[in-house]
Amino acid sequence: MHLVVVGGSDAGISAALRARELDESTEVTVVVADAYPNYSICGIPYYVSGEVTHWRNLAHRTREDLEATGMRLRLETLATTIDVPGRRLRVRDRDGEAWIGYDALVVGTGAVPVRPPIDGLDELGPRDGVHLLHTMGDTFDLMATLDRAAPRRALIVGAGYVGLEMAEGLTARGIHVTQVERLPEVLPTVDPELGALVRAELLRHGVDVHTGTSVTRIARRDGGLRVDAQATDGDPIAWDVDLVLVVTGVRPDTELLVAAGATTGPAGAVDVGSDMRTSLDHVWAAGDCVITHHRLLGRSYLPLGTTAHKQGRVAGENALGGNARYAGSVGTQVVKVFDLVAARTGLRDLDATAAYPAATTHSSPDDHKRYYPGAQPISIRITGDTSTGRLLGAQLVGGLTTQTAKRVDTLATALFHEMTVEAVSELDLSYTPPLGSPWDAVQLATQDWVRHHRSTLTTGAPA
Amino acid sequence: MHLVVVGGSDAGISAALRARELDESTEVTVVVADAYPNYSICGIPYYVSGEVTHWRNLAHRTREDLEATGMRLRLETLATTIDVPGRRLRVRDRDGEAWIGYDALVVGTGAVPVRPPIDGLDELGPRDGVHLLHTMGDTFDLMATLDRAAPRRALIVGAGYVGLEMAEGLTARGIHVTQVERLPEVLPTVDPELGALVRAELLRHGVDVHTGTSVTRIARRDGGLRVDAQATDGDPIAWDVDLVLVVTGVRPDTELLVAAGATTGPAGAVDVGSDMRTSLDHVWAAGDCVITHHRLLGRSYLPLGTTAHKQGRVAGENALGGNARYAGSVGTQVVKVFDLVAARTGLRDLDATAAYPAATTHSSPDDHKRYYPGAQPISIRITGDTSTGRLLGAQLVGGLTTQTAKRVDTLATALFHEMTVEAVSELDLSYTPPLGSPWDAVQLATQDWVRHHRSTLTTGAPA
Repeated sequence: MHLVVVGGSDAGISAALRARELDESTEVTVVVADAYPNYSICGIPYYVSGEVTHWRNLAHRTREDLEATGMRLRLETLATTIDVPGRRLRVRDRDGEAWIGYDALVVGTGAVPVRPPIDGLDELGPRDGVHLLHTMGDTFDLMATLDRAAPRRALIVGAGYVGLEMAEGLTARGIHVTQVERLPEVLPTVDPELGALVRAELLRHGVDVHTGTSVTRIARRDGGLRVDAQATDGDPIAWDVDLVLVVTGVRPDTELLVAAGATTGPAGAVDVGSDMRTSLDHVWAAGDCVITHHRLLGRSYLPLGTTAHKQGRVAGENALGGNARYAGSVGTQVVKVFDLVAARTGLRDLDATAAYPAATTHSSPDDHKRYYPGAQPISIRITGDTSTGRLLGAQLVGGLTTQTAKRVDTLATALFHEMTVEAVSELDLSYTPPLGSPWDAVQLATQDWVRHHRSTLTTGAPA
Repeated sequence: MHLVVVGGSDAGISAALRARELDESTEVTVVVADAYPNYSICGIPYYVSGEVTHWRNLAHRTREDLEATGMRLRLETLATTIDVPGRRLRVRDRDGEAWIGYDALVVGTGAVPVRPPIDGLDELGPRDGVHLLHTMGDTFDLMATLDRAAPRRALIVGAGYVGLEMAEGLTARGIHVTQVERLPEVLPTVDPELGALVRAELLRHGVDVHTGTSVTRIARRDGGLRVDAQATDGDPIAWDVDLVLVVTGVRPDTELLVAAGATTGPAGAVDVGSDMRTSLDHVWAAGDCVITHHRLLGRSYLPLGTTAHKQGRVAGENALGGNARYAGSVGTQVVKVFDLVAARTGLRDLDATAAYPAATTHSSPDDHKRYYPGAQPISIRITGDTSTGRLLGAQLVGGLTTQTAKRVDTLATALFHEMTVEAVSELDLSYTPPLGSPWDAVQLATQDWVRHHRSTLTTGAPA
């Protein structure tokens, strides 16, 4: 049995590790386009900021760790063609081209950055101080610019997860950051009421934030860069900066699979079942290149490292003949922005009302008993189905000490089990005054929702 | 409709609040033995330590807050007799005795401290520097001793939750603490492997810890107190101290209900159904005076504030004719001891192996990605049923920054839903490098358990 894996990031390595764990007799070859297998792409902002002191620390596992499991790594090797009937993969490396035969193939080619339609962007690159940020190669390019040009003013196009992390990272390096977002509020993956809290945190740390503003043109000027933008209300605006970072999201990298005939789904991602099987015989796929089974929305596209790990594990198991199933995402995400943590699971108000008779409440319970020092409110938005009472989503923004990142996990687990908002109060959650309340903050928030949207009791109390 | 509630702590006040919330026409009278309704007993150690600056801050709600909901408070009023057929409650206050008629009665008399069999204990009291610690009255007595006698050396009998919190609290006041525990390790509610970590934390902060040691005698001597003890290995040991705190747990305060004919269950607690109804007509009970429905162990006794709130809410609703059910505890508990957090949910190894074919693994995953500054291992013990794969329990000890208190909640929610250990890896938990890992620490721990105890795959992978 020879399993070939394309891709050295989360999905591919998870598949390879799972196969080796399950059956040591399986030969596993991992084809990696660059020289950096199993690097934590999510960690790049913390290397740029200086908090991670060496780029090698970003490796989840070293090359030696990986090879010690018995897998074979073919680095700096590009997979160019899948011969599906012949069960072989065409690869190209510095020595030329060759076919690798396989019994099963797992493809984890990931995603590539979206290039927004900005005049001049295609002509400019790292040498001009204009950067995308997705791979280790992009990271080295950016670090070279930071070292060489010592920029004092940066402009970040995009205020999603990576954009916000980079705003913090560049600010930590003493660089003044202007952040430009096309949508009306930063962190558009949460309701704008919570995005506004993140904006305030950016402003508090000196980031110049412009939302509802589209960058239209980037050009070299006077040894620096001139960035033109257009606000939604029509006013043009321009900045002179030394560095431009374009981080406006990703799209699935499906070239290899689509050329082989694989069918695609939402956002053009490769279609897979919950068994991670593609439409191609003996070919599985996982991670940012495939669709995501979302437990509330069905087939969607939601590229996340957590999902890639889970899907890769399922693909690796099934490529060996297993019968594993990816249980599906509930869309849990979290980001740290300076001293704030913003987390969500399930649906935002906007997504929910499109699909369900939904309503959202906003509460601000304290993270722990107010009498104990250091209590801070957490802003919690609970979204539920007003007809069935089902929990549909939760969004939380709290300070670094408020355990917000793991409080969202309780609600993610409740969502996974299709609990009603009301039933969240049945959960037996931990309490001690320095760290919680007898009803945890998440229960105080769900109780608020019930008070507003379930005035008639489902428990059968008297009329 | 007149609802009478006995008890002004968590269960009683929750019942009264719920009744007023559901039906504003219901007359609610709460009979409270002391002058401190709705005080946070769990917060007492933080008032003694000085972290809570005024005892009034310990009130979850002020008397005015409570009365604003429309309930009537009868403070410093002792409930002495229930006339079940007559539906009336005998009470005594400074003005004498009287009957209060009711349509429904909810009893939340709570618990009283256990007095261990120590020679001399019955003859000594607050004036001698010998204290129990359960009520606000006990708290005022202890604070008076601290103010009057300025003790330099304290001995704490017991190393459970309150004992450990008081060791921290008295140490914070500059008092040298000797802690004596009858059982072989401190914090006996977790496996001794984790108790040992808590012991190390106590020692690191200068607490003198003696486990496997029973205090046998307390006597006045030379203006202080002489405490004699016996180690399990037979060596007698003695200390001269200025203050003794006896905190060895509680037993249910059932006098009122038992005298009225209520049946009892485990630990002598009053028996109730999941509807919180007692065996007496029109009488409900909740909190530390009643049995706890444990989702893994059935009827048990586990007095906790979180449980009292839930049970009180159910009792208040049902006393009005509702049909609410207490969903049951999974035994979730947490304590902060200096810079450590120790949490558990479900069963310890010992409890589990008595009831199930169970096994436990010990893992130490980092709280977040190691490349980001400040990563700390969390010690996690996972207990599962080796036959069915079901998750039975989890115990975690981690530093204050590791979100341990809320990570246990994810596992508590998994337990609530009777997940297998393996299925915990299906949960979509949040990840960002400063606050987690692509597989959360709790998933890395459950995966360890699966590797050790479920070598045959349930997912149908090949032989």
